[in-house]
Amino acid sequence: MAQSELVFAPLGGVGEIGMNLSIYGVGDARARKWLVVDCGVSFAAEEHLPGVDLIMPDIRFLLAQRKNIVGLVLTHGHEDHMGALLDLWPRLNVPLYATPFTAALFEARRLSEPGARKIPITVVPRGGRVTLDPFIIDFISVAHSIPESHALAIRTPLGTVLHTGDWKIDPTPLVGAVTDVARLSALGEEGVLALIGDSTNAIRDGRSPSEADVAKTLAELVRTAPARVAVTTFASHVDRIRAVAAAARAADREVIVVGRAMERVIAVARETGYLDGVQDFRGPETYGYLPPDKVLALCTGSQGEPRAALARIAEDEHPEVTLSRGDRVIFSSRAIPGNEKAVDRVINGLIAQGVEVITDRDHLVHVSGHPRRAELVEMIGWLKPRILIPAHGEALHLAEHAKLARRAGVPEVLVCRNGDLVRLAPGPAEIVEEVPSGRLYKDGTLVVESEARAVTARRRLGFAGIVSVALVLSEKGELAADPEIDLTGIPETDADGTAIAEIVRETVEDTFESLPKPRRRDPESVAEAVRRAARAAIAECWGKKPICHVHVLMV
Amino acid sequence: MAQSELVFAPLGGVGEIGMNLSIYGVGDARARKWLVVDCGVSFAAEEHLPGVDLIMPDIRFLLAQRKNIVGLVLTHGHEDHMGALLDLWPRLNVPLYATPFTAALFEARRLSEPGARKIPITVVPRGGRVTLDPFIIDFISVAHSIPESHALAIRTPLGTVLHTGDWKIDPTPLVGAVTDVARLSALGEEGVLALIGDSTNAIRDGRSPSEADVAKTLAELVRTAPARVAVTTFASHVDRIRAVAAAARAADREVIVVGRAMERVIAVARETGYLDGVQDFRGPETYGYLPPDKVLALCTGSQGEPRAALARIAEDEHPEVTLSRGDRVIFSSRAIPGNEKAVDRVINGLIAQGVEVITDRDHLVHVSGHPRRAELVEMIGWLKPRILIPAHGEALHLAEHAKLARRAGVPEVLVCRNGDLVRLAPGPAEIVEEVPSGRLYKDGTLVVESEARAVTARRRLGFAGIVSVALVLSEKGELAADPEIDLTGIPETDADGTAIAEIVRETVEDTFESLPKPRRRDPESVAEAVRRAARAAIAECWGKKPICHVHVLMV
Repeated sequence: MAQSELVFAPLGGVGEIGMNLSIYGVGDARARKWLVVDCGVSFAAEEHLPGVDLIMPDIRFLLAQRKNIVGLVLTHGHEDHMGALLDLWPRLNVPLYATPFTAALFEARRLSEPGARKIPITVVPRGGRVTLDPFIIDFISVAHSIPESHALAIRTPLGTVLHTGDWKIDPTPLVGAVTDVARLSALGEEGVLALIGDSTNAIRDGRSPSEADVAKTLAELVRTAPARVAVTTFASHVDRIRAVAAAARAADREVIVVGRAMERVIAVARETGYLDGVQDFRGPETYGYLPPDKVLALCTGSQGEPRAALARIAEDEHPEVTLSRGDRVIFSSRAIPGNEKAVDRVINGLIAQGVEVITDRDHLVHVSGHPRRAELVEMIGWLKPRILIPAHGEALHLAEHAKLARRAGVPEVLVCRNGDLVRLAPGPAEIVEEVPSGRLYKDGTLVVESEARAVTARRRLGFAGIVSVALVLSEKGELAADPEIDLTGIPETDADGTAIAEIVRETVEDTFESLPKPRRRDPESVAEAVRRAARAAIAECWGKKPICHVHVLMV
Repeated sequence: MAQSELVFAPLGGVGEIGMNLSIYGVGDARARKWLVVDCGVSFAAEEHLPGVDLIMPDIRFLLAQRKNIVGLVLTHGHEDHMGALLDLWPRLNVPLYATPFTAALFEARRLSEPGARKIPITVVPRGGRVTLDPFIIDFISVAHSIPESHALAIRTPLGTVLHTGDWKIDPTPLVGAVTDVARLSALGEEGVLALIGDSTNAIRDGRSPSEADVAKTLAELVRTAPARVAVTTFASHVDRIRAVAAAARAADREVIVVGRAMERVIAVARETGYLDGVQDFRGPETYGYLPPDKVLALCTGSQGEPRAALARIAEDEHPEVTLSRGDRVIFSSRAIPGNEKAVDRVINGLIAQGVEVITDRDHLVHVSGHPRRAELVEMIGWLKPRILIPAHGEALHLAEHAKLARRAGVPEVLVCRNGDLVRLAPGPAEIVEEVPSGRLYKDGTLVVESEARAVTARRRLGFAGIVSVALVLSEKGELAADPEIDLTGIPETDADGTAIAEIVRETVEDTFESLPKPRRRDPESVAEAVRRAARAAIAECWGKKPICHVHVLMV
C-alpha cells in the first residue's frame, strides 16, 4: 500500500493579489481526501481585461476531485476569500462551513444577485471546531478588518497545519475579537508542522497601529469639522463603522448611510450583534433636511469605484447627497494597488469643489488589517512551526516573508506558486506535483476560461475597431448589389480629410474587380482577398489594422 | 481705444498631470499678441482610452490666433512639455525657441519617428534672452531632473511674470545647473507681478534631497552588489546617468545601455557636453561576454512599460540581457501615478526569478525633480510676487500650493482651470473669459478630437464585442441566401453550452420570418428588427449587448 501523505496546494492568492483558494489533502497519491479553504475573487479593473469584472481561480482540479472533497471552509467574509462561491459553488456543490457573521454576510451578498440560487452553509460557532474526517479544523480568532476572521488549525493524522487566513495583532479592536494568542501558543506547545501565512505586509517594518488609535483620530477630525463630514471606508469594516458612529455621536451628528454595500453590511452587523449599543443610522433621504453640522455621511467608494456613492458625490451627480466648500471628507482607507488613479480622480473632484480631503497620508485615519514584520515574527514565535510557506501576496511579499522566516529560525521555508502541490509530511517539505490551476473570468453573466478567445478579441477590438463588409455574388461571379460596409471604432477621416469608409469602399470594389474570374466564384477566396485589402487600406491611413468581418453571399 | 491688458491662460497641465501648455497675451481684448509656453503630452495608458497612446492639448484657440502668436518657447525637454509638438507643430507653424540640449533632444526625438517632417528651432543660449515683441523672455536656470530646465521671466509693458516651468532647489546637482537664486532674487527686487508655478509636490513637506545624495547611495549599492546589477531610471535624467556611470566606474563595471530612449538621450548628452569626462558605454551585445561582477545594465522601463527593456528582462524575454538569482536591480525612479500596477508587475517578475529589487521605498535611490513645500516658500520669498497662480498639478496640488502661498503672504492667489483666461494687469487678477481648451488623442497615426466617436465606440467594443449579420433579399422580400453571421469578442457558448452563434442565427431567421410581408422589402426596417433581436438574444444569455452591424443587400 502506498504511503499516506499530507499535502498542500494554493490554487490562487500566491504571487498575486486576491482570489485566495487553498487545498489540503490527506491520503496516498491515488486516494486523497481534500479540504478546501476559501474561494475568493480578484478585481479586474486594471488588468487590461476589457469587459471582465471579476477574476476567479480555475477550479478544474476541484471538479475532478469533487467526490473526495470533505468540505470548503471560509476563514472570513472578504470578497477575496469568498467572492467566487456565488458563481462557482453551483458547479462544486460541496459542504460549506463558516462562522455566523461570515455566513450571514455571504447570504446577504447572495440575495443581492437577482435570481441567485440557494447555497447552504453550515454555521460554525466563533472559535469552534469542525470535524471533516480525516481533518479536524479548529477556528482560532484573529484580529482583522472584518468581524470573525479566523485562523484555522487543521489537525490531521500526519500533523497540524496552521493556516492563518488574514490576520494582524490588535490588542484593542473595537468589537472584532483580538488575536487569540493563548490558543496559538498552546498549539505551538502541542507542535505545529506547518504555518501557511498571510504575507501582504511582509515588506512593512514594525507593527500596525490599533483600531482604537484610528477611532481617536476620527473622533477628533469629526469634532473639529466646520460643516458637513463624509467618511468613506471598506463597507465590511465594522470596527471602523463603529468608530465613525462613536465619532458622530460625540459630535452630535446623525450618521447617514450612503451606498448599498454599506447598507448590506450594516444590516448583517446589526443582526449578528456587532453593532449592539450603536445608535440608529439614517438613509440618504434625510441628508438634505439636516443642518451641515448635524450630518456625517458614511459612504461607499473608498477605492474610487466610479459608480459608488463617493465618486458620484465628487462629480456632483448624487441625487441626495452633495458636498461643497468648507465640508470635510475623510478617506478612512487606502487604495488597493491598481486603484490609485481612480482614488486620485475622486479626491481631485472633491478638491475642485472646495471640499477638504483628509487621507492616511496626513492623519492616522486608517490601518491595514494585515500583519507587519514584527507581528509575523511573533506568530512564528508562538507556533514554532517546522515548515513555513508564505501565502497571500505578490512575489515580492512572499520573498520577504520567506526571508524573515529563515532569519527567525524556521527550519524549512518554501516559496511555491499556484498549482504547486507541496508534500508537508512525511519527510522534508517538497513540491511533488503540479495540479491544474489558472484563472476564470466573469464576463457578463458567464464564467469563461482565461484562454477563451472572447476577451483577447475584445482587447483587439478596443485597440483597432472593426470593419464589416457584405458582398453578394451572382452565379457568374459578379457583384449582384453594391457592397455594404460598416465601420466602428475607426476614425472617420484620414489625415487629408478623406472619409475612411470611402477608402474602404473603393478598396473593396477594386480588389474584387482585380480578382481573376474563377476566384470571384469562390466565396472564401473573395472574402480573404477583401479582408486583406480592407485591413491594409485602413492601416495605410491610420497605422492600425482593425478586425474585419467579410460576408460573401451567393445568389 | 480699448485698454491694453496682460492675460494668461493654461490650455493644459492645470488640474491634470502632463500636457503642459500655457499662453500669455498682451494687447486689448480684440488685438492681442500671444506667447506660447511648452506643448506637452500626457500618457493615456490608464485613462481607459483603448488604442490611444497619447493625449495632447486641444490647440483650436492657437490655430484661430495663429497670426498673432509671436513664438513658442520650451522650458525644457520632458515629453509633458514638448511631446505634442511632433504632431501639432505642422498645423501651428510658429517660431520655436529652446536651449541647446532641449533643441537637440527634440531633434533626436523627431528623427526617431519615421517620415517626420523637419521642424526648425531657434536655439537660445542657456540663461539667455529672446525678444518677441511685446515680450522679452529671460531664461533663468533651474535645477530639475533633466539638463537645461529654465524658468522664464516674461517681461511685458504691463509687468513681469515668472513662469517657473519644472524646478527644484538642488545646491549640488551633478551637471545640471543649480537654480539661479541670484537672478531670481534680483528679479524680485525689480518687482514681479505674477508667479505661475509648479505645484507637483505642494503636498510634500520640507525639501527634496540632492542628486549628490542619490549618487552616494547608488555608488554604495553598486559597490556591494554580489553579481550583476541593472539600474533603471527616466531616460532623460542625465544627472542620474552620470551618477550610475560613476558608481559603475568605482566598482570596475562596464555600463551597458539597454533601450532606445536611453541610447538617444545619451547620444544627445554626449553631443552637448553633459557627459564630458564620463567613460564610454557599451551596447547590449557585449553584455553576455562580461563576467557578472563586471557589468551594470542601464535600462529603460522604470515605469513598467511592457515593451521597454526592463519589463522584457523581467519576463526573461530580452534577447541579450538576462538576470538571475543573486543579481540586483535598482529602480532609481518612482512610479508616475497610474503606473503603480505596471511597475509592481515588473518587480514581481524579477523577484520571481530570484533577483533582488531595490526601490526608493528602502533606499535613497531617487529624488523628485519638483519643489516641496519649503522650496515653494523660498521661491515666493525671492520673487515677492503680487499674484500667484498654481500650475502643473492635479486639483489637490493646486489647492495646497494656493493655501501655502496665501499663508506666505502673497496678496492675490488664484486657482484656475484649463481654458480660464486670467487678466493679470491692470487691476486685480481675475478670470475674464473662457477660451476653447480640451484634449486631442493620438489614435494610431492620426490626431483625433476627444469628442470623436471612434474611441468611445472602441470602449464599447472592448466591453461587449460585435456581431455582424448579412442578409440578401429578393425583390419579393424573401431571403435569397442563408444569412451570414460573425461574432467577435463574445463567448462561444452560453451557460448551457449552446453556441451563441447558433442562438443568433435562429433569432435572425425567426425575426425575419415574423416580419409582416411589406416590411420585409424595406432593408432599413429589416436591419433594425434584426439588430434589436440579435442584441436582445445575446443579452439574454450573456448579460451584455454587443455592437451589431446588419447588412441587408437587395438583389
